[in-house]
Parts: sequence; structure tokens; C-alpha cells
Amino acid sequence: ELASELGERLAAGPLAGCRVTITAGPTREPIDPVRVLSNRSSGRMGFAVAEAARAAGARVTLITGPVALPTPAGVERVDVETAAEMHAAVLARLASTDLFIGVAAVADYRPAEVMVHKLKKGAETLELRLTRTPDILAEVSAHRPRPFCVGFAAETESVVEHARAKLVAKQLDLIAANRVGDGLGLEVEDNALDVLWDGGQCRLERGPKTELARHLIQLIAKRYALARGAHSPSTKA
Amino acid sequence: ELASELGERLAAGPLAGCRVTITAGPTREPIDPVRVLSNRSSGRMGFAVAEAARAAGARVTLITGPVALPTPAGVERVDVETAAEMHAAVLARLASTDLFIGVAAVADYRPAEVMVHKLKKGAETLELRLTRTPDILAEVSAHRPRPFCVGFAAETESVVEHARAKLVAKQLDLIAANRVGDGLGLEVEDNALDVLWDGGQCRLERGPKTELARHLIQLIAKRYALARGAHSPSTKA
Repeated sequence: ELASELGERLAAGPLAGCRVTITAGPTREPIDPVRVLSNRSSGRMGFAVAEAARAAGARVTLITGPVALPTPAGVERVDVETAAEMHAAVLARLASTDLFIGVAAVADYRPAEVMVHKLKKGAETLELRLTRTPDILAEVSAHRPRPFCVGFAAETESVVEHARAKLVAKQLDLIAANRVGDGLGLEVEDNALDVLWDGGQCRLERGPKTELARHLIQLIAKRYALARGAHSPSTKA
Repeated sequence: ELASELGERLAAGPLAGCRVTITAGPTREPIDPVRVLSNRSSGRMGFAVAEAARAAGARVTLITGPVALPTPAGVERVDVETAAEMHAAVLARLASTDLFIGVAAVADYRPAEVMVHKLKKGAETLELRLTRTPDILAEVSAHRPRPFCVGFAAETESVVEHARAKLVAKQLDLIAANRVGDGLGLEVEDNALDVLWDGGQCRLERGPKTELARHLIQLIAKRYALARGAHSPSTKA
């Protein structure tokens, strides 16, 4: 009872009462029992966003690929390995998600076949056949009813243009884009974000991921409140 | 002076004065700025072996791929990412290595081409052309003069047979083999090892990697002393 009272008291802030599902980290796609296909991602940005959402009053579920990070206090954590496992974990929570933030660097290709036994070294070259994984963010966005959808885009070039195209193509409510490389973005403490939505955009200058995450959550909460005011029947009751 | 005196006092034990180079962890082969090809490996076994070698009096250099582990006290650490970087770091230290222990799960294939910009999602399937990386252990073993060479083998089947074949093919002095899968070997605390050499073998039963590493170093030190007694002119002086 005390814990639930404390929970209620903590649940003040711009996302009070909002059920947020966040994905973080890389996924890992097995080639054989030893070899994997993966993405560079420490999970730091996703974990920082989860912590900031919790601090803003949200009830947060963090679905994460393999990372070496402690779970933020008050956040429910679900560990997964592959894109397929992350996809299943997100879908299982879709009905109880008001706001979805896809920060994970999900592998978009996986080996077409997984070998049961370890591949033996042999030929000088080898062809690895890859096949597409499900696009979790696009699927969540296309679902009806759908949560408020926030995506992330890591780009090496034409960052804002690529992010704007992704916002439109996947019909997201908001997208946060960052340049990767040059000591920014992946596996480092610092980041910088361009945040885009239909009709607006905002630049969050280079800073620690924890700080950027707090600013991003403020922006998301504002857009979320506007969207909920415009679309949700519950606010008109 | 105090530090060097302390160093000398610490350098008692079966590997006193021995310069040991150990590789640990996975390597990561870039496909593009985000995607990588890698191996499952926490680096725990290699780090435990480095710690045990140091405790046995050795001067230890630990060349490691990307892992989330603290450096053992008194061990010199060199961080690398790709098989090519690990290869170069090992070769650079070869002239000052008396004993080489290759624990790293080195990627034996890497993408034939690395894309400068992030690959865009497109086709449903994709062919990734891979090419062999240098075999660090075989190269160290073939070098003249050569250090005492210890290899590791992670196998899913016919563990001892595969390890014996590798011992012979690469002309190693000793090999430690473990079964992967079933909660053993990779990314877990526990392991079990079959240790093989020319004319003998020994089973180290399931236990924590730190404990196995201590037993393994005792075995290695014994074989190393025998080999040095048999081959090194310095012991005959």
C-alpha cells in the first residue's frame, strides 16, 4: 500500500499516468552458435530516455537487446536478443502502450538460415544470405488503435532529410535523428539530436545522453498532450 | 625503486619473469558504420586467464576486443576492435612474448567490402560477401623464434576430436577446449575445459571461470617449464 501510494506520488509530471514502452540497445542475429550479426549500440540513449520518461511520471517498460547497463530505478525491464524476440515483446505490450519510443538499433537483416553447429573455417570467401527482419516501428505505427509513435534514426549523411522521409513513410508522430561517426551517436556518452514532427523541428545541441533524453522527453510530452487533446475521446468526456 | 622492488617480490610463482601475451573477447568486423559481424564472447575467460597468469608471477599483456570488463590489477591492457587490429597488436609484441595464450573469439570471416555510408534497407534478401581474416594463432605458432603457444577451441560437437585436430594442425603446445551451448562456454560464468597437449590430456570439470583459469595456468606453467628445460639454451648456461 505504501509502495503504491509512493508510486502515485511519483506519478506527477508531464507523463503522469502514461504507459510508455521503449526499445533500446542492439539486437543480435545468430549465424551459428558462435557468430552473430549485430549493430553498434551501447543502449545508453534508450536507457537514458527510459529514466527520463520515468522521472516525468510515466510507467515505463524497457525492452532491451544485450547491453551492459543497470536497469533504471522504477523501470520494468524485458531482455531480448533477436529482432524477432524484440518484435514479439513489443506486440505483447501494444494493447497497454500509450506511447511507444523505438530507440533500439534493430538489425534489419538476419541470416536466412541459422546453422545448428559451428561453421568450420574453409573457403577463402563465403556468401552469407540475409533476409529482412520485421520493421517493428512501422508495424506499431500501422496498428489500430495505435500508441503515440516516436522513432529514432541514426544516419551518416543528410541526417534531417533522411529522418523527415522516415517520419512520413512510417507515419510517426515524432522522430529524433542523430549523425553517427565523428565521436557522436553510437557507443559514446555524448550525442546531438534533430527532433522532427509534422510541421516543426527542433535541434538539441551536443550534450550528455542523459541531458538530451530529458529535453527529448519534454518535447515528446508536449506533442503527446496536444495529440491526446485532439484525438482521444477520453479527454472530451 | 619501491615499485620495482614490489614488482620483483610479486614476481614469485611458477610464471615468474615470464612475459605472457593473452587475447580475449570477441572481435567486431564492420559491415557499414552501424552494422557489424561479431562473435558471442563476454571476454570473461580471457580476463580470468590474464588475472591467473599475473597471480602466477607473469608480466601480462591483455589484448582485448570490445568487452564490458574491468582490467585485472597489474595487467597491461590493449583495446582493439577488428581481427586485423588484434593481429597487428599481437605481432607488435611477438618479439617480447615468451608465452602466447589465444583466448579471443576472433572473427574468422569479415565483410569483403566495408560501406562508408549506412546501408539502406531495400531488398527482401541480400548477399553479404565475406572473406577470411588472418589466423593469429597459426601465425604466432609458425613464427621463428616462437613463444610457447596455447590455443582455445569452442566447439558444439566432437569437442576433444576437433581440439586435438587443431592442436596438431596449428602445432600448438597446448589447447583448452570447451563445449558451447547448454549454459556452458559463452557469455556465462561457468565453464568446463578439456586440456590437450602432445601425449596427454586433462579434464577440468565445470566450475567458475576464475577457478578454471587458475587450474589452467598451473597446467600451462608445468608444460612451459618442461618445454623451456628441453629447448631453451638459456637454461643450459
